[in-house]
Amino acid sequence: MPLAALRARLADVSDLARAAAVLEWDAETFRPPGAAEARTHQVATLRRLAHERLTADDTAALLDDAEAALGTHAGPDDTDAALVRVARRDRDRAVLLPARLVTEKAEASGQAMEAWKAARAADDFAAFAPHLARIVDLSIEEADLVRPLVQAERGPAYAPTEADARYDALLDAYEPGGDTVQVAAVFETLREGLVPLVAAIAARPAPADVLHAPADEAAQWAFGLDVARAMGYDLDRGRLDRSAHPFTTSFATTDVRITTRVDPDFFPTAFFGTVHEVGHALYEQGIDAGLDRTPLADGASLGMHESQSRLWENLVARSAPFWRFWYPALQARLPGAFGGVAEADFVRAVNRVQPSLIRVEADELTYHLHVGLRFEIERDLVAGRLAVADVPEAWNEAMRARLGIVPPSDADGCLQDVHWSLGAIGYFPTYTLGTLMSVQLWNAAARDLGDLGALVAGGGTAPLLGWLRTHVHRWGRALPAAEILRRATGEALDAGPWLAYAREKYGALYEV
Amino acid sequence: MPLAALRARLADVSDLARAAAVLEWDAETFRPPGAAEARTHQVATLRRLAHERLTADDTAALLDDAEAALGTHAGPDDTDAALVRVARRDRDRAVLLPARLVTEKAEASGQAMEAWKAARAADDFAAFAPHLARIVDLSIEEADLVRPLVQAERGPAYAPTEADARYDALLDAYEPGGDTVQVAAVFETLREGLVPLVAAIAARPAPADVLHAPADEAAQWAFGLDVARAMGYDLDRGRLDRSAHPFTTSFATTDVRITTRVDPDFFPTAFFGTVHEVGHALYEQGIDAGLDRTPLADGASLGMHESQSRLWENLVARSAPFWRFWYPALQARLPGAFGGVAEADFVRAVNRVQPSLIRVEADELTYHLHVGLRFEIERDLVAGRLAVADVPEAWNEAMRARLGIVPPSDADGCLQDVHWSLGAIGYFPTYTLGTLMSVQLWNAAARDLGDLGALVAGGGTAPLLGWLRTHVHRWGRALPAAEILRRATGEALDAGPWLAYAREKYGALYEV
Repeated sequence: MPLAALRARLADVSDLARAAAVLEWDAETFRPPGAAEARTHQVATLRRLAHERLTADDTAALLDDAEAALGTHAGPDDTDAALVRVARRDRDRAVLLPARLVTEKAEASGQAMEAWKAARAADDFAAFAPHLARIVDLSIEEADLVRPLVQAERGPAYAPTEADARYDALLDAYEPGGDTVQVAAVFETLREGLVPLVAAIAARPAPADVLHAPADEAAQWAFGLDVARAMGYDLDRGRLDRSAHPFTTSFATTDVRITTRVDPDFFPTAFFGTVHEVGHALYEQGIDAGLDRTPLADGASLGMHESQSRLWENLVARSAPFWRFWYPALQARLPGAFGGVAEADFVRAVNRVQPSLIRVEADELTYHLHVGLRFEIERDLVAGRLAVADVPEAWNEAMRARLGIVPPSDADGCLQDVHWSLGAIGYFPTYTLGTLMSVQLWNAAARDLGDLGALVAGGGTAPLLGWLRTHVHRWGRALPAAEILRRATGEALDAGPWLAYAREKYGALYEV
Repeated sequence: MPLAALRARLADVSDLARAAAVLEWDAETFRPPGAAEARTHQVATLRRLAHERLTADDTAALLDDAEAALGTHAGPDDTDAALVRVARRDRDRAVLLPARLVTEKAEASGQAMEAWKAARAADDFAAFAPHLARIVDLSIEEADLVRPLVQAERGPAYAPTEADARYDALLDAYEPGGDTVQVAAVFETLREGLVPLVAAIAARPAPADVLHAPADEAAQWAFGLDVARAMGYDLDRGRLDRSAHPFTTSFATTDVRITTRVDPDFFPTAFFGTVHEVGHALYEQGIDAGLDRTPLADGASLGMHESQSRLWENLVARSAPFWRFWYPALQARLPGAFGGVAEADFVRAVNRVQPSLIRVEADELTYHLHVGLRFEIERDLVAGRLAVADVPEAWNEAMRARLGIVPPSDADGCLQDVHWSLGAIGYFPTYTLGTLMSVQLWNAAARDLGDLGALVAGGGTAPLLGWLRTHVHRWGRALPAAEILRRATGEALDAGPWLAYAREKYGALYEV
């Protein structure tokens, strides 16, 4: 009974949050332009009411009662125990943030979004700087409020510097248990491994650009859906729409939607965007349906989520075996674009490595140099070691040092990403952490399933999806990300496997 | 200050209800099939929380404070006074219905919907009968709870029979102030006027069927949008999608959406469906934007809403002047279907009158005979004068008496409409009340604007829309429907003008 009462309360919170997600999805796909303001109000109300309901005093009482009812008999895999633990944690974190701060940050973010769009269009960092400064200040305020919770969870052995404790508290919102020192070490390892590898590749002949070619949009769309279905994306419980920026959103394990965008002259934009989002969507569709309408029906962390999208996008869909199976179908769909392009040339082209300015267009290797520099800038901003006014210089110097190129403008440099305007400091590292996990999971799946390349080349990835369902998806948030990784792979997070994969794959492609 | 606090509370209620409407719209347009159950939970939660927030004790206190702050100085057109009056009324009505009854009716309706679909498919009224009986019982229970409120509002001169008091209380939910005795008199007048008129038309040669012809769906869609835009439907604040049944929904005056369905072989289905819904949408888009996020941002009554859809569908888009302007454009869009059809034959065909079985496919005249028989059956069910088991016989006898035809099956008879399964008893009459108002408003507009036929034939209906905006739309619920009608036309609801219109139009078309 106490658990049923708690579940009913959490179902309300979940329904409100999912409804907000439906409204946000609609805003990106179908909402008429005139309704922007009305929609903002509606989403804000739903999110505020969800927050009120989660932080209500009687929710604490429901948690107390449920904990008492569970007693001490629950094992570590007990779903009820996980539910109470995660809900308690979510509530504790929410209670630490006063409504005033939440509202202030939402407003600052709304203003920063507008200022960022204008500043990027005008290449005017100075116009954005005060907004970024405000976001940093509010993030520090948030971090200082959350730190005691993080400290209490991690125990006395956790003794970070003042600055890292702050960044940990921000990172923790996206990657629960995330550790700034470990993240910094990961990026250092990646940089040491990648900078020479990218330089060696740059000295080799570049693959021919066979990808920029007019490609019928309907055929692109159909091919993307063919692959999505073959990957196991259940369209009875999902759908694909267009939006300016691709994303995945879940309203229930029975309603997980993705979006993509289509470039009529560059097939990879829609295709790899779709595959990436399908990777996220398979995770959400694979969560145990019994967790629906609870806080457990979500990814274990953003990193773990990204491990799924990157696994399918990079390890599967950018691999030679994948195109051994799918290339004839692609040629049949888009004969004008690819009818005369050899498979090997196509595979090399979709794996072209070249230092470039824009993170979201970067290749599989240089991508992490982009992410690493953002992490360092964020960390220094939060630590007070870097002034907002000095961000462009720090950015450009980091680009020069890592990629050997300097953005000709801040619009193509430190103004390119939306995250800071959204108030999301501590988010970027999860892109790389997830990519590292993707290779660790892939290797573990290969140990269990045998030659995954052969599986992919045969067009039958169902066993791989089954393995991911069993070892990752079904848990939702019932286990922490690190625990899912440990059980699935026997390992902790490690940059080594990914670097080995990168050296092997790109060594072969570029003969370096 | 007290008014601002009330407005904030009512904005929460509105945002929750509008969010529920977004989720319902999505369910009819884009939601994947597997998500039906999850979506039902989400909508139910939003509606329950809206109800809780409206009926909360402190909402009553907010209303008291706002009333006190308004004092006695507010005039009859004061928006703040209207806001407090309507919100108080909504709350009083909501408070009368215990959560238990609301839940029970929602569940009974959900079960009735499933049973109705199956019973209609199997032509098995007996399987549906217990569900209808339950809906009737719960509606009577609801009516008896609401009756004291209706009685108090209408004062001591209001002295209906026990049975009519019940039906009034149900009707009042859809047509505030609606009166069963008056409605019965209206349907009696219509029947007396229509039965001989329809019989006279039946004795004349039927127009040639020039409408059943293959019609390219994209061209149908484009033509519908052309006309919608010309009517003044603002697609920056709206959009048109497909659904199984056409409907209009509003999420704000800046986001009013319509749907239609397309029959590839029968142009009128999509076209008149679209025009009808655009009529509703123009009303919602025309409500004063200052009323958004309050209970005043809605139609004054379902009848007044239907007056707008019927005015555009019948008085405008089924008129000869309309096609004088639009027919060349239609022929250009659909040359295969209408290139060889004379304009006059087309106009006669879209105004064909013929007794038929299905209300939603009925012509402009016989439609009200269908509605009238539903009203009488509902009234008798609620009064206990008719047993549910006897509904098919009553239906078939009424069809014979009014239309001279008897449904060959209950599927084409008393099982055809969804309304009773939805728990909506008292809803049907509003279709006819609205149609009557549409002619009263049209005549008043003609007195102010001159020859409306000439306006329509010139393709420039903006003055007509402007008149409706000024006299009807902008008020929202700030004035009662009867008061809007009285101010706009100088008249009370009256079947006479519509009958005169019907006799003139169809007299000319059929030479009767």
